[in-house]
Amino acid sequence: MSTVEKRLDELEHRVHDVVARDAIRELTAEYCRQVIRGDTEGMVALFTDDASLLTHFPAGSSQGDVESQGRTELLEVYKDLGAMSLKPFIHNHIIEVNGDRANGFCSVEIRLTQDGEAYTGAGHYEDEYRRIGGGWKFQRRELFVYHWVPYSQGWG
Amino acid sequence: MSTVEKRLDELEHRVHDVVARDAIRELTAEYCRQVIRGDTEGMVALFTDDASLLTHFPAGSSQGDVESQGRTELLEVYKDLGAMSLKPFIHNHIIEVNGDRANGFCSVEIRLTQDGEAYTGAGHYEDEYRRIGGGWKFQRRELFVYHWVPYSQGWG
Amino acid sequence: MSTVEKRLDELEHRVHDVVARDAIRELTAEYCRQVIRGDTEGMVALFTDDASLLTHFPAGSSQGDVESQGRTELLEVYKDLGAMSLKPFIHNHIIEVNGDRANGFCSVEIRLTQDGEAYTGAGHYEDEYRRIGGGWKFQRRELFVYHWVPYSQGWG
Repeated sequence: MSTVEKRLDELEHRVHDVVARDAIRELTAEYCRQVIRGDTEGMVALFTDDASLLTHFPAGSSQGDVESQGRTELLEVYKDLGAMSLKPFIHNHIIEVNGDRANGFCSVEIRLTQDGEAYTGAGHYEDEYRRIGGGWKFQRRELFVYHWVPYSQGWG
Repeated sequence: MSTVEKRLDELEHRVHDVVARDAIRELTAEYCRQVIRGDTEGMVALFTDDASLLTHFPAGSSQGDVESQGRTELLEVYKDLGAMSLKPFIHNHIIEVNGDRANGFCSVEIRLTQDGEAYTGAGHYEDEYRRIGGGWKFQRRELFVYHWVPYSQGWG
Repeated sequence: MSTVEKRLDELEHRVHDVVARDAIRELTAEYCRQVIRGDTEGMVALFTDDASLLTHFPAGSSQGDVESQGRTELLEVYKDLGAMSLKPFIHNHIIEVNGDRANGFCSVEIRLTQDGEAYTGAGHYEDEYRRIGGGWKFQRRELFVYHWVPYSQGWG
């Protein structure tokens, strides 16, 4: 291979990685935008057909883990969240790309209302992403909730 | 065109896009930094000369929409915000680049004080960006405020 | 130099910069992940051996500036923070790369508990980064705390 071809190969590899990481960051941002809009179909369209979502509540919580898999179950979960007027904000995104698969960590803070009362939540996602047809989707999201409490009470 | 030239063209196109997106993310971060510094001139310098800023307050708010256009009006708006010690934090940035124009969505959370009282705000921007002389500026910002309330009260 | 080589040079330069910026964003995200995990060794491993950390508390605070330098002192600082269950969230990142050195600004919001009570903090970092062996580390972090107050009280 010529020097020029080697440099092109190296550049293409690095650009591929950077573009993938940017697209994955936007996937999580787009997820937030759809949640904020309350667009259940829009949220679920960001997941692969066989994607799963697992939520871990904090130790001592009355709520156990909740897992959902596939379009139908995800639509059901997100339909139930619609009334909460969720405003999620993503931070601290770390991404590792391996070809058409990727893994990520990101923090989330959430402003919401539950039965007319302000709530505040925080936690992080451990994500698996998959590239399908040129775009990236969620293959799996695992949400570790630190707290999900009335705003007037806080997490103390 | 040779294969090498085709690969170079494709790379240049993708790198152009990635670099623009990075610069636009930093534009919104720089805006926050200038707001935090309380540097009114610094804030307005991030907008094009004919830029506009439109703020939508929530339904039911006593406050109607507020629009400002051009340097003089923007300077006036930001001068009035100076006393609030605004600390804005940007999240969930989505950017679409089209040549020297771009559109974006980003969430914002704000810590501030009003008449000595802590306030908390949240909302999102729908932005238009324009490249001028190698750098990106705001052409238009439309802010949709979800709530802007005393911290002690919350958004419930 | 041929036209192809010039284009390759220019591309390599720009990709180098974009990749560095991405890595530095992840460095600050990784820092947050290690803090959230409470992994003191993991946090300190993100700093160069002679790195320093300087914290400025707000004017009027009972607390003066605190500076630490080098692995041993940093380990001591972070050990003391372990009990607070800190959840830092980074925003508004601005990065300037100069070869193997870089400077940055980023905002931080923190949820924590102190003596069993919820606290909330906000501020920003002015960072110096250094590339070592292909990766980026913190050379110096200077934290400007805006407020660090009981959650029930707020920053008013």
